[in-house]
Amino acid sequence: MTRQAFVHRIAAASPDDVSGLKTAFEEGRIDRSAIVAVFGKTEGNGCVNDFTRALASRALKDLLGPKPCLVMSGGTEGGLSPHFLVFEVREVSTAPAPRALAVGRARTSPLPPEHLGRGAQVDAVAECVKVAMEDAGLKSPEQVHLVQVKCPLLTSDRIAEAAARGKTTATRDTLKSMGLSRAAASLGIAVALGEVNRAKISETAIGTDWSLFSSRASASAGVELAGHEIVVLGHGEGWAGPLRIDHAVMTDAIDIEPVRDALARLGLEANGQLRPAQRMRLKALIAKTEAASTGAIRGLRHTMLNDSDISPTRHARGFTAGALAGLVGHTELYVSGGAEHQGPDGGGPVAVIVEAT
Amino acid sequence: MTRQAFVHRIAAASPDDVSGLKTAFEEGRIDRSAIVAVFGKTEGNGCVNDFTRALASRALKDLLGPKPCLVMSGGTEGGLSPHFLVFEVREVSTAPAPRALAVGRARTSPLPPEHLGRGAQVDAVAECVKVAMEDAGLKSPEQVHLVQVKCPLLTSDRIAEAAARGKTTATRDTLKSMGLSRAAASLGIAVALGEVNRAKISETAIGTDWSLFSSRASASAGVELAGHEIVVLGHGEGWAGPLRIDHAVMTDAIDIEPVRDALARLGLEANGQLRPAQRMRLKALIAKTEAASTGAIRGLRHTMLNDSDISPTRHARGFTAGALAGLVGHTELYVSGGAEHQGPDGGGPVAVIVEAT
Amino acid sequence: MTRQAFVHRIAAASPDDVSGLKTAFEEGRIDRSAIVAVFGKTEGNGCVNDFTRALASRALKDLLGPKPCLVMSGGTEGGLSPHFLVFEVREVSTAPAPRALAVGRARTSPLPPEHLGRGAQVDAVAECVKVAMEDAGLKSPEQVHLVQVKCPLLTSDRIAEAAARGKTTATRDTLKSMGLSRAAASLGIAVALGEVNRAKISETAIGTDWSLFSSRASASAGVELAGHEIVVLGHGEGWAGPLRIDHAVMTDAIDIEPVRDALARLGLEANGQLRPAQRMRLKALIAKTEAASTGAIRGLRHTMLNDSDISPTRHARGFTAGALAGLVGHTELYVSGGAEHQGPDGGGPVAVIVEAT
Amino acid sequence: MTRQAFVHRIAAASPDDVSGLKTAFEEGRIDRSAIVAVFGKTEGNGCVNDFTRALASRALKDLLGPKPCLVMSGGTEGGLSPHFLVFEVREVSTAPAPRALAVGRARTSPLPPEHLGRGAQVDAVAECVKVAMEDAGLKSPEQVHLVQVKCPLLTSDRIAEAAARGKTTATRDTLKSMGLSRAAASLGIAVALGEVNRAKISETAIGTDWSLFSSRASASAGVELAGHEIVVLGHGEGWAGPLRIDHAVMTDAIDIEPVRDALARLGLEANGQLRPAQRMRLKALIAKTEAASTGAIRGLRHTMLNDSDISPTRHARGFTAGALAGLVGHTELYVSGGAEHQGPDGGGPVAVIVEAT
Repeated sequence: MTRQAFVHRIAAASPDDVSGLKTAFEEGRIDRSAIVAVFGKTEGNGCVNDFTRALASRALKDLLGPKPCLVMSGGTEGGLSPHFLVFEVREVSTAPAPRALAVGRARTSPLPPEHLGRGAQVDAVAECVKVAMEDAGLKSPEQVHLVQVKCPLLTSDRIAEAAARGKTTATRDTLKSMGLSRAAASLGIAVALGEVNRAKISETAIGTDWSLFSSRASASAGVELAGHEIVVLGHGEGWAGPLRIDHAVMTDAIDIEPVRDALARLGLEANGQLRPAQRMRLKALIAKTEAASTGAIRGLRHTMLNDSDISPTRHARGFTAGALAGLVGHTELYVSGGAEHQGPDGGGPVAVIVEAT
Repeated sequence: MTRQAFVHRIAAASPDDVSGLKTAFEEGRIDRSAIVAVFGKTEGNGCVNDFTRALASRALKDLLGPKPCLVMSGGTEGGLSPHFLVFEVREVSTAPAPRALAVGRARTSPLPPEHLGRGAQVDAVAECVKVAMEDAGLKSPEQVHLVQVKCPLLTSDRIAEAAARGKTTATRDTLKSMGLSRAAASLGIAVALGEVNRAKISETAIGTDWSLFSSRASASAGVELAGHEIVVLGHGEGWAGPLRIDHAVMTDAIDIEPVRDALARLGLEANGQLRPAQRMRLKALIAKTEAASTGAIRGLRHTMLNDSDISPTRHARGFTAGALAGLVGHTELYVSGGAEHQGPDGGGPVAVIVEAT
Repeated sequence: MTRQAFVHRIAAASPDDVSGLKTAFEEGRIDRSAIVAVFGKTEGNGCVNDFTRALASRALKDLLGPKPCLVMSGGTEGGLSPHFLVFEVREVSTAPAPRALAVGRARTSPLPPEHLGRGAQVDAVAECVKVAMEDAGLKSPEQVHLVQVKCPLLTSDRIAEAAARGKTTATRDTLKSMGLSRAAASLGIAVALGEVNRAKISETAIGTDWSLFSSRASASAGVELAGHEIVVLGHGEGWAGPLRIDHAVMTDAIDIEPVRDALARLGLEANGQLRPAQRMRLKALIAKTEAASTGAIRGLRHTMLNDSDISPTRHARGFTAGALAGLVGHTELYVSGGAEHQGPDGGGPVAVIVEAT
Repeated sequence: MTRQAFVHRIAAASPDDVSGLKTAFEEGRIDRSAIVAVFGKTEGNGCVNDFTRALASRALKDLLGPKPCLVMSGGTEGGLSPHFLVFEVREVSTAPAPRALAVGRARTSPLPPEHLGRGAQVDAVAECVKVAMEDAGLKSPEQVHLVQVKCPLLTSDRIAEAAARGKTTATRDTLKSMGLSRAAASLGIAVALGEVNRAKISETAIGTDWSLFSSRASASAGVELAGHEIVVLGHGEGWAGPLRIDHAVMTDAIDIEPVRDALARLGLEANGQLRPAQRMRLKALIAKTEAASTGAIRGLRHTMLNDSDISPTRHARGFTAGALAGLVGHTELYVSGGAEHQGPDGGGPVAVIVEAT
C-alpha cells in the first residue's frame, strides 16, 4: 500500500467559514474522509482570550467529525490572510517516490494544569512525537521536517481547579502560560528528534534557556484543548506524489535567506520575490516567530517587549509575516507567534511544501 | 557657494533620548548649527493619543532650538527600531556634483481646524512645497524624490474650538482626522509636483478617490503642531557630496521589487537581502504604507480594517516594515503609516538615500 | 390563557459555555421549550472582530434550536461578568396580574448592506417593534419599558457585495457601521414608541442629531446576523407572576440616581448600595452607555474618543458598569456599549427587572 | 511657625498642558514657590510604554523646577479626567488646628535594577517613609492617612544593564516589573506604618502573599525615575486650615460603602450620590484598584486577567473609577491601578480630602 499526501490552502472569510471546504468537497477536489489534519490561521489576537480558534474548531468539527487533528493558530496581524491548510492522505496505486511528503499524527491525553510548562509536559510530547513519526512511516529524525503541536494553556479556571486539588501551577499569568506550554512542548519535540538531550532540560531551563531548541518544532497554544495534537511532516517511506518538504531556521525576525535557500533546494530559485508561476507551486509555508528576548534585532532595539497595548506575539507575527511575504509574494502564510525553544532566540523554524514539476 | 547635505541615523532609547545626538556633537560628527531637519520614529501608537511625538519634539527643541523642522512619526510596530534621521546642510568649498542630495524646507501658518481635510489644506501645502523646493535649489518637479510633510490633526478640543466659531470640521472622529489631514496634504504635494491636476480635486475626492496620488509624498499627522512642516529631498543644483537619493512606488504592502530596483540604480545591487557592506551605505529608507481599502492584498483577504483592537496603521507599519527589513537587512527604517494619496491604494512611496562609493 | 415570564441569570465560563443552562434543564429550573429569548454578555471586544458573539450564538443554537431570539452583546470590560439572561414564557393557570412582566419578539428580514444606517433601516425596525409589541400583548407604547434590538453591521465583504451591485454603503468604516446600525435601529424604536416623529428623521440626522432619542431602546450590533432580532419587555395584559419591570434614563455615564429611583419604585429602596437580600430580588439590569460626543462628563474632559488603543465603547462599558455595580452590588449586569439615539448624548436607558415580594 | 496645606485640582488638556497652573499663578491662587508635590493623572496606558508620565513630568519640571515631588499616574480609562493635584505648603500666622491636613515628603536614592521587587526595596521605602513623616510633623503611624510613592520599573535596558554587571533582576517581564515594584514599595509602607511585621516579608512573599498589605499605601510605577518619591498625608501637629483627610479600604472593586462612610466622617453625608454643593468641598479622592487575583468579584467571574488586548490595570482603573464617580458625582479622581499589597486582594485604599465648613 502506498499513501499520498495532499495539501490544500483554503481561504476563510471568518473563523467559522467552512464554505471553501464544502465547495472543494462538492467539486471533488478534496475527499472529506481522507482529511487527517487541518492547520488554520484565524483572525483573533492569538493570545489567551482568542476565541476564534474555538469557533473555527467548532465549525470544522461539525463539518469533519472528530478524526482530523485541528491546529488553529490565532493572529493574522499585518497582511496575513486567514485560511485553512488541509492535509489529506489517500491510498494510491502508484509507486512510492524516493522523496514524497509524509504526514503522521498522534494525540496525548489531557495534561493536568500543574504539569504545564514542566518536565512532565516535555516527556508527554516527546513520547507522542514518536507515535506520530511511526504513523507517518518516518524511521529516523533526519526524515522529519516539521513537528506541529497544538498545546493547552492555563486559564483562571484551570489554575483554580489545580489549586483546589492542592497543586501549584507553573505560573498564574494566563498569557505567560501560553509561552510556557509552547516551551515545554517544543523541548519535547527537540528530545524526540535528538536535538536536545533530555538530561539537560531542568525544570528551570523550560522557558528560559534559549540555547536549547528544535529546528523543526512549531507549537501553538490554545484554550480549546486540554491535551496535545501532534502532526509530523517529512519524507517518509511508502509515500507517493509530487509534494516535497524542506525546512530552514531563521536566526532572527528578518533572516529570510535560509528560507530562500530551502525554496531553491525544492526547485524554486528566485533572486528577488518568487515569480507568480513559482508562487503557484508553493503549497504551504509554516513559520514560527517571536520577539527576541534581547530586545534587539541585529543590534538595533525593538520595542515589542515594552508595548503594553499589543502583545509581543502579535507584533512578531505581523513583522515576520511581512518579511516572508516579501520573499514569496503572497500572504496566505501560516506564521505563528511564540517560538520558545523553536529555533534560536528571536528566530524560528520555517517549513515549506512545494510541488515538484 | 556649494552646499552639502549629510544624513545621520541615531538610535533612541526612548522618545526623549537625545543622548546619541549629544555624543555626536561632542565627537564632532554633527554640527548642531547645521541641522535643518530631524525625522524621528518614536515608539507610540502613531495615532491620536500618541504623545511620544510630542515628547520627542520637546526634547529635540530643548536641544536644537526652533530652527530644524521636526517630523516625528509615531509607531515602531514589529521590529522597527526607534531612531532619529538627522539632516545637516553645510556650506562646503568643493565643487557641486551633478547628482547630490539636496534638502529644502518650509512651514505653513497654523491651519484652522475647519480647513483640515479640505481644499484649503491642499492649497496651503501645494504652495509651501514650492517654497521648500526653491529653498533646496530644485528647479523642476523631476528633481524631487521625496516631500515629507508633517500635518496637524483634530482633537476634541480643536473640534470644539471650531464649533464655538460656528465652523464645522470635516469629521468629528479624531482618528479619522489624521487620515484626512494626510490625504489633503498629500494631494497638495501631488499638485505641486504636477502629478495631479488641482481641478480634479473636489472636496469629496479628498480621502476617497485613491486614483489621485503622489509617488513622492510622505505625510505624518501629529497632535503637536497646528500648521505644516515640509521638507523636500532631491537632486538639486549647487550641491556636493556622495549622497544620492531615488524613489520607488510599492503598489501593495509586499511589493518590494521596485525598491530593490531603486537600490540597484544607486549602486546597491542585491539578489537577496542587502549584504552587510551594502547596508552600511544605505543611509536612510523612508516609506509610507497603509492597509488596502479593498480589504485584500493580491486577492487575498487581510483583516487590518476589521480589527477593533489594533488600528490599521499599526498593522500596516509592522507588516511592510517586515517586508522592507527583509530586503535591506536592518530595522532602523522610517516606515510611516497612513498613505492616503501617497502611492496607490494599499501601496506607498519609498525613498532611499545611498552613499556613493 | 395567561402567560408568565421567567428571567434566569446564568453565568458562563466562556462564550460557548452552556453548561449552566444544561444543569438548569436537568434540575427542572428552566423548561427548554419555553425559552423565547437569550441575552448574553460575552467576553469579546464588542466591536467588529468580536467573534465571541458568534461562538455563543452557535453554542446556544446547537442547544436551543432556532426558536429563541439570541441577542449577544460583546464586551465585559472592567468587572462585568459574562452571563446569559434567559427569558422563558410559560402558559399558567393563575390569574393575570395588573402589572407583570411581558415578553414579545419579532424578526426582520435580512437588511441589504446599503440600507444600513439609513431611513430604510429605521422603517424596518419601527414596523418590527409593533409586531413584537403585539406578540407581547402590549397595547400602548406606555406599557413598554425596553426594546432590545440586535442589528447587523458592515464588514469588508458586505461592503464589497453591495459595491458589486453598484450600491454605496453609508460608510466604509466597519467599526463606524456598528454605530450607524445601532443609530438607525434605535430611531426605529423611537418612532414605534411615539418618542420621535418619523418626519424629523432625515438621512443626515441618523448618527448625528443626538437630540432625537428613545428612552427605552437598547441596540447591539453584531456580525453574526444580517437582519434584526427584536425583543420587547413591558407590563402587558394577560400576564401573571411576580416579575416587574421599570426603566430609567441616565443623562450621563455616572448618572445613577434615576436608576436608584427606578429600583425604589419596584420596591428596592436603598440609600447606598443594594443590600444582599435586595440584590437577590434584582433579576436583571439592562443598560446602554456611550462616550459623550462632547468629550466631557459634567464639564470635565474624558479621553475615550481620543484613545486609539481602546475603542470608546469598551471604555464606556467598563466605566458605567462600575457606576451601576457600585449601586446594585454585583457585576452580572447587561451593560452594552454604543447608545446612539438610546437616551441622550453620553447617557443611556436602563431597564431593571425585580421580583416583587 | 504654623504650616497650612492647600490642595488644588487643575484640569489638563494634554499631558504637557500646564496652562491651568500658569493661570493659577497669574491669578494668585497658587504660590509657585510653595508647591511641594504634584500628583497627576495622565492619559497614557499606565503601563510600561506610557510616556505621558514622562511628558507631564518634563512640562512640570520646566515650570516648577526640581523641588516638588512629582507623582504621575498614567491611565484615565473610562470617564476619568486628566488633571493635576497640586499640594502647596505655606507658612501662616494662624493658630494650628487640632486636625488639619499635613504634607511631608522624601526621596530615596536610585534603586539598582536588581533590588527591584526585593527586600532591599522594601527597606529603602520603609526608611524613607519615616523621613517623610518627620517632614510632615506626623509623630505616629495613626496620624497617617496616605503614603503615596512613585517607584521605578524595569525596562529592557535596565535589565541588560544589571545583567552586564552580573546581576539578575526579579523578572525579565517589564510589565510585571511594575507590579513587583509597587508590591515591594507598598510593603515598605506597611512596615513603616506598623501594619506588617518586616520579619514576615520573605523574598517570595513580595507580589504573592496578598494577606500582607497596607491600608494607606498608594504606589505608582513609572519609567521616568530610578528612585522613589514619597509623599505622606495625615493630620499632623503644627498645621492649620480647613482641610481634613480620612481614608477607607475597599475590599473589592465595587466596595464603595466604606468610602461613603469616610466622606460622612468628614462631614459629607449622602444617601445617594454627593450633591453638587458637597462635591465642591471634596478637594481630592485618591484611590488604588486592581483586578482580583481570584478572577472573581463577589463570586462572579471577571475577565480582566484573561484579556490579552487590554491590561488588567486599565480595566480595573476604568471600572472602579465608575463606582467611585457614581458615589461622588464627578470624574476628576486620582484612581491608580495596580494595588499590590495596597489593601486586600482585589480592593484598595482610598483617601479623601475635604474642606471643613
